[in-house]
Amino acid sequence: MAELRSVLIANRGEIALRIIRACKELGMRSVLVYSEADALSLPVKFADKAVCIGPAKVNASYRNAQAVVSAALAYGVDAIHPGYGFLSENADFAALCEQEGVGFVGPAADVIRSMGDKIEAKKIARRAGVPTVPGSEGAIAEYREALAVASEVGYPLLIKAAAGGGGRGMRVVETAATLEKDLAEIMSEAEVAFGDPSVYIERYLTDIRHIEIQVISDGSTVLHLGERDCTAQRRNQKLVEEAPSPVLDAELRQGLADAAIALCREVGYKNAGTVEFVFDNIERTYYFIEMNTRIQVEHPVSEMVSGIDLIKLQLQIAGGLPLSLTQDDVLIRGHAIECRINAEDPDNNFAPNPGTIANFRPPGGFGIRMDTHIESGYVIPPFYDSMIGKLICWGADRDEAIARTLRALDDLVVDGIITTASLQKRIVDSPEFRSGDFNTAFVTELLSATPPVLS
Amino acid sequence: MAELRSVLIANRGEIALRIIRACKELGMRSVLVYSEADALSLPVKFADKAVCIGPAKVNASYRNAQAVVSAALAYGVDAIHPGYGFLSENADFAALCEQEGVGFVGPAADVIRSMGDKIEAKKIARRAGVPTVPGSEGAIAEYREALAVASEVGYPLLIKAAAGGGGRGMRVVETAATLEKDLAEIMSEAEVAFGDPSVYIERYLTDIRHIEIQVISDGSTVLHLGERDCTAQRRNQKLVEEAPSPVLDAELRQGLADAAIALCREVGYKNAGTVEFVFDNIERTYYFIEMNTRIQVEHPVSEMVSGIDLIKLQLQIAGGLPLSLTQDDVLIRGHAIECRINAEDPDNNFAPNPGTIANFRPPGGFGIRMDTHIESGYVIPPFYDSMIGKLICWGADRDEAIARTLRALDDLVVDGIITTASLQKRIVDSPEFRSGDFNTAFVTELLSATPPVLS
Repeated sequence: MAELRSVLIANRGEIALRIIRACKELGMRSVLVYSEADALSLPVKFADKAVCIGPAKVNASYRNAQAVVSAALAYGVDAIHPGYGFLSENADFAALCEQEGVGFVGPAADVIRSMGDKIEAKKIARRAGVPTVPGSEGAIAEYREALAVASEVGYPLLIKAAAGGGGRGMRVVETAATLEKDLAEIMSEAEVAFGDPSVYIERYLTDIRHIEIQVISDGSTVLHLGERDCTAQRRNQKLVEEAPSPVLDAELRQGLADAAIALCREVGYKNAGTVEFVFDNIERTYYFIEMNTRIQVEHPVSEMVSGIDLIKLQLQIAGGLPLSLTQDDVLIRGHAIECRINAEDPDNNFAPNPGTIANFRPPGGFGIRMDTHIESGYVIPPFYDSMIGKLICWGADRDEAIARTLRALDDLVVDGIITTASLQKRIVDSPEFRSGDFNTAFVTELLSATPPVLS
Repeated sequence: MAELRSVLIANRGEIALRIIRACKELGMRSVLVYSEADALSLPVKFADKAVCIGPAKVNASYRNAQAVVSAALAYGVDAIHPGYGFLSENADFAALCEQEGVGFVGPAADVIRSMGDKIEAKKIARRAGVPTVPGSEGAIAEYREALAVASEVGYPLLIKAAAGGGGRGMRVVETAATLEKDLAEIMSEAEVAFGDPSVYIERYLTDIRHIEIQVISDGSTVLHLGERDCTAQRRNQKLVEEAPSPVLDAELRQGLADAAIALCREVGYKNAGTVEFVFDNIERTYYFIEMNTRIQVEHPVSEMVSGIDLIKLQLQIAGGLPLSLTQDDVLIRGHAIECRINAEDPDNNFAPNPGTIANFRPPGGFGIRMDTHIESGYVIPPFYDSMIGKLICWGADRDEAIARTLRALDDLVVDGIITTASLQKRIVDSPEFRSGDFNTAFVTELLSATPPVLS
């Protein structure tokens, strides 16, 4: 395959704009598919060509694999960039692209499929020598098997749906007394939610961080761009991400990176991906949990500290170009923090808050990057994800990155709707965040400990 | 002196906003003085406190030393940051600050005075072993002396007013036949323009670049942040600046840096400064021309490649903090290009184009920084400099920085007025700029060679 001349972007919002911009800088023609709800969006204005493929509902547009591939064929693009969400981790979609002779900016369909199955992914990790959370070797068929595993793993433990992820399809089991009932319930829930009743058992770790390794591979050279720390979450939704992690030493950092690269080699991974780990604060050790076989929302923090444009590398690799970097060329400088700005009301149980943005003024100055598709007058459609932008702040060290983030959150103007920016200011300004010493429960504790002042 | 707690900003526009942001990140209170014409400007909205000190005319406000110092005393600030232009290189103002016990964010008054006198500055440079353009040792008193110098220097030569600068107060003399007449005329012009008839003679170099070294000193440690190349000028007005320079090798780069540091040591320089050189493309050698004893418009390109926040360092040094960096900590990464976006019409002889900005949308994404004080609805006052913002684009190498700059100039929306952005696109996209092989005549040649297409 030669270098891509044209790319279809099968996504919306800030990531669509991000990919269009990368295409422009590489001299590639950009074709955007969009839903009727996004006709007036910035990505539609910025793309070289924009094609409406259906109504607002995602299954009729952004998740409609056949409509996307048809547009790709009709407009003669060399490849499809799926962004994140939607079709990005849909192995059938990647297979359809292969079948129809359209490039897919991502790994091979069978790699997506293997990594999408949590039980299979854990098996592969073990094969690659990557530590996994202690638990069942594979799917649990019935109660007696669960009981045997549980006696080894100990309580509390987690039952997880093999097809779940991102916090969906899991249950904590506190004691052996409820194991049988919990197992039956979660299996039937998994059947309903994912069409697959397979579950597995894991030790329930309580004092943990979420740390992930960014990888990029051209199929022969596999590089890592260091880690991202995504511990500041609420209900498994990431709110603040940073790079590097404030808790790793050089040895742990190298161990995580080596593990991620070993996993990629094991499956012949190609393109950008993220290997996710839980980090046990007490034992100071890490366990593989899953791999995201796509670009992630929080990829900019890795870009800001490495200076490397991940979307451009994705497009170049998809076009068949080998990586021109070696691991020694990847130098991490300074510190970056990302806040996901969501149109949600943190004082009202994070109710979605779509509406019209009366006035938008992004923060500016040294070290500030705001990836967003909004502008003054933009009407947020109620059909999609509530994220309206990502504020990424770089500093020469973590303290400067924190100071910049707080200053930039103060500068940010999004009139007309309520956003999570006020919460992110509380998070980043808190003694816990500043110290770096917190775990995945921190945001929830912050929310319950300090109720917002009534004004 | 202890760390500054509060800072008065004696400036307007983007640099006022830049300084306010640095104050916020350092936890320093910002007090802004402004003219009546700037009452609705963003810096006024962003400062902790804003004080109107006079009418639009600069002599009654931004250049009114006594009014600025009075405001500093009235509001009890620890120091005044003068930005660039206005009072920033006014030795009397710096002396007044000293006298009234208000800190001045810049070097000592006598250093500003020495460097402001071009003849004196050249003498100091020679004393420090820094090469200067061949020419008279000092001021030329009369024709016979000029004739003697001219016979050594050769024709064409330049007569320059000692008090001139930035292209003002200079004349090219082509042959000995006009020397006497030219000398008399430029002396009387200098008397009228600057109140000082002193002139000096220099070799007239025709194939040159403009390269400058950014320095920062706490009074004992003097560091450099590498060079900026400002060769893309029109009538001595910089339009596009970049770092690093595309023409220097390691030896020349080190020579320039050593020269700049030697000059700073010679005068006991403290705070940020820029040592300007001409670079002779033919001889591939450099000569000191002048030192700017203040922060410069183009400082962000050095920040983007070094990761170092120059305004913060200025404020910390003014508060008495020693530099915590060594020269080995200053690592240049990638390439940065700045375009000065002016409200001028490049197709109409650069006529100033003040007015109302109907819609402003800054470019965004990885590597993009736009330092500006404008927003949608902003009315550009006709009283000041026409620069409405600076677009700074970073890339992993010069090619990526060029691609980003072109993409960002395409993204930029400034509706309602005409700007220089279209010209900057032509400059950066030209084969000459892309090759790096051009001199200070390049922009003028580009303008005359390719008249804009009528639409």
